Amino acid sequence: MTHIYNFSAGPAVLPKEVLAQAAAEMLDWHGSGMSVMEMSHRGPEFISIYKAAERDLRELLAVPDNYKILFMQGGGLSQNALIPLNLLGHKPAGATIDFIHTGSWSDKSIKEARKYANVNVVASSNTEVPPQAGWQLTPGAAYLHMCTNETIGGVEYQPDFNDPRLKDVTLVADMSSHILSRQIDVSKYGAIFAGAQKNIGPAGVTIVIIRDDLLGKALPVCPSAFDFKLVADNESMYNTPPTYGIYIAGLVFQWLKRQGGVAEMERRAQAKAELLYNALDASDFYDTRVAPQNRSRMNVPFYLTDESRNEAFLAGAKARGLLQLKGHKSVGGMRASIYNAMPIEGVQALVDYLNEFAANASNKP
Amino acid sequence: MTHIYNFSAGPAVLPKEVLAQAAAEMLDWHGSGMSVMEMSHRGPEFISIYKAAERDLRELLAVPDNYKILFMQGGGLSQNALIPLNLLGHKPAGATIDFIHTGSWSDKSIKEARKYANVNVVASSNTEVPPQAGWQLTPGAAYLHMCTNETIGGVEYQPDFNDPRLKDVTLVADMSSHILSRQIDVSKYGAIFAGAQKNIGPAGVTIVIIRDDLLGKALPVCPSAFDFKLVADNESMYNTPPTYGIYIAGLVFQWLKRQGGVAEMERRAQAKAELLYNALDASDFYDTRVAPQNRSRMNVPFYLTDESRNEAFLAGAKARGLLQLKGHKSVGGMRASIYNAMPIEGVQALVDYLNEFAANASNKP
Repeated sequence: MTHIYNFSAGPAVLPKEVLAQAAAEMLDWHGSGMSVMEMSHRGPEFISIYKAAERDLRELLAVPDNYKILFMQGGGLSQNALIPLNLLGHKPAGATIDFIHTGSWSDKSIKEARKYANVNVVASSNTEVPPQAGWQLTPGAAYLHMCTNETIGGVEYQPDFNDPRLKDVTLVADMSSHILSRQIDVSKYGAIFAGAQKNIGPAGVTIVIIRDDLLGKALPVCPSAFDFKLVADNESMYNTPPTYGIYIAGLVFQWLKRQGGVAEMERRAQAKAELLYNALDASDFYDTRVAPQNRSRMNVPFYLTDESRNEAFLAGAKARGLLQLKGHKSVGGMRASIYNAMPIEGVQALVDYLNEFAANASNKP
Repeated sequence: MTHIYNFSAGPAVLPKEVLAQAAAEMLDWHGSGMSVMEMSHRGPEFISIYKAAERDLRELLAVPDNYKILFMQGGGLSQNALIPLNLLGHKPAGATIDFIHTGSWSDKSIKEARKYANVNVVASSNTEVPPQAGWQLTPGAAYLHMCTNETIGGVEYQPDFNDPRLKDVTLVADMSSHILSRQIDVSKYGAIFAGAQKNIGPAGVTIVIIRDDLLGKALPVCPSAFDFKLVADNESMYNTPPTYGIYIAGLVFQWLKRQGGVAEMERRAQAKAELLYNALDASDFYDTRVAPQNRSRMNVPFYLTDESRNEAFLAGAKARGLLQLKGHKSVGGMRASIYNAMPIEGVQALVDYLNEFAANASNKP
């Protein structure tokens, strides 16, 4: 069989070692006679799985002790509502949320937040992170929301929030599509959230990392199952958690630690991204649209300069085992998502194909 | 190794055939080169898995064409909020929701609903379904909520809603812990919901079955990710769905069809429940508290008349591979959950142990 490289934006490629271990343990986890799927979430077996996953994620991201890690359901999209539902309870009616708009996921967050508060878009672009000097912050805003990696448009922040104006601002960051791919200083943020289905594990698990003082501020209409304080007080078991997804996430965290942790993931991400962007930049056959300093190292959108060749490009890619390269329908073109579990060999195979396709097309104008 | 029988109330036992198939397909689903966990939810592979699961569940429960089936996240507990958030939008402020209270899950639903509406408890008991003749229905109530199987207390409805007073009432039923174990007439209900982790699949998937005319009535504060109409219009892919859990649920649905469908599950559930309740009734050593006509066929709570022997009972059970028999902490005692995937051999093993433990204890007063 052709070696498969899966460039899906999410759900996405997972480490083969993790999948192999999950397969081997499917019917009998560690001699328990049970699949992880069959375990009571309150039994000692699952509790041990949960605690290890929480501890490993805390270690990988160097999460300070005054932050809780929540394993929730609903995906990143649900957090667009759950963040305001959880943070606005102590604010007067008519509070304002500040947003930085950098693409489609910012759009969705902004639209949803308008249900619960006034919204001020402090800066906007689809192709770069607007320079901080131009951000028009609202005095007394409830918080400042940003999507630090736009999965569709491919705009990624360089996490550098040393602007003294941000010192007293509560930052909320949607890190769904680049969490665990670079070192971050969690203490700069009030809350971080991420859907699991890119760098963490299967769809259906959502991670929330939140500073203790922001708990207990939910609006009265916030559903209990999604009340951060209730979730935190019950160690993510107020509701039955998505146990199997947490188990897989835990295996991914163990794999990350064996690989060298987030520092090593950052090094690899940089190397993979450079390899791919260099190939795209070197050819007139391909085009990219994001400002170089904010090019995502995880999601690489690109366009054929001759878009009439799109279908041929995708068919040729599929024949070589390079899967799910079609761009999001809202922006067209191509997109290669190269998350932590994508080996550099996969990126090299894509680069080889990019060069080969351009050469062949040039020969047959 | 001792044969394991897992009596967990949920997450709970799954068919071994399903787990074996999932293990075999973990690294490469049907030659795709991908795990189901790695598939884009918008790709043809996962779409085919999703459509088969929806179709099979529709067939198993004979869901009429004017009902949508939604695959959501958040568990049954989240639906205690999401049902009022989705059904009250066209009602005047101060609307009333009628509830029948039959135990802990009714309690939770009632408490949560009070956030969004007035609540009228039309009848209440912890040991039986209050006779319909005594229900004090509210004229013009938004809907009537019932939990048709109480997982903790073990009270189960006989689904017989032919009372003419109910003809124009929208029934909402939490069927989490007995869905797919008996034939039901879906057309009697406005909405049915169920967390997956009992008779359907892994925790993290929630099924909602809802009549078309009830869609589009969400309150403005309902999060978009949980708006039934948006979920329905996007075939459960408004948000990234819990793909792997849906895949496992689909395998369970296929297994149910191979076994003979819901009619066969109903026959087996009746046989298993009779076997267990007969053993409990036959011994003075054990006690049950639910009225015979409403004894749950899925969750069988029972008590040792001498509760000082509880720990010894549980230790002996575990030594024989009979796991997770401890009752819920809120009610104590024991509980045997005997869902669809529990073979009658498991119930027989429990009955043998019940008799043996009672005999031994009688010999050593």
